[in-house]
Amino acid sequence: MLDRIADKWTVLVVGALATETKRFGQLRRELDGVSQKMLTQTLRGLERDGIVYRKVYATVPPKVEYSLTTLGLTLVNLVETVRYWSEGNIEKVLMAQKRYDA
Amino acid sequence: MLDRIADKWTVLVVGALATETKRFGQLRRELDGVSQKMLTQTLRGLERDGIVYRKVYATVPPKVEYSLTTLGLTLVNLVETVRYWSEGNIEKVLMAQKRYDA
Repeated sequence: MLDRIADKWTVLVVGALATETKRFGQLRRELDGVSQKMLTQTLRGLERDGIVYRKVYATVPPKVEYSLTTLGLTLVNLVETVRYWSEGNIEKVLMAQKRYDA
Repeated sequence: MLDRIADKWTVLVVGALATETKRFGQLRRELDGVSQKMLTQTLRGLERDGIVYRKVYATVPPKVEYSLTTLGLTLVNLVETVRYWSEGNIEKVLMAQKRYDA
């Protein structure tokens, strides 16, 4: 579980669901570059961990919505802090990697 | 890099180095269950990312010390928050996984 917290797509999915319930298509559009398979896998993992709630409406075709559980809501700040740190320091990390690999 | 932040061994190494410089053997003893290979790999990855500084003393045999860089120090709080969240919620996650797998 620990590893999943800072998995890139987890961070972005939790961030996208932080304010409202969303459907698969909305998430796919919002998460730049995520593949259908990766988004499905990420949502399934988060559902399994009790972070995301998946609601299926018995309409034809069935409508599916995703939202954060109470446990998921406790992750929002942490995930934002992880994202904030990464965005603020990615340049330094890339430069360090260049020096190390030189 | 984002994934590495909450990698279990990263969290524990950064935590162990938060207060003082340490040698490989000390880290190995402190990090319950870490293998020689995993600790070497984690330290090398953190060194490459500019998070850990590796100092080699030209003694015979050579003495090697590990410490956090300034960038590494900015990770300490974040890593503690990740650990705190995980330890506080791991039970809920495991229960959710059981329900999902049932």
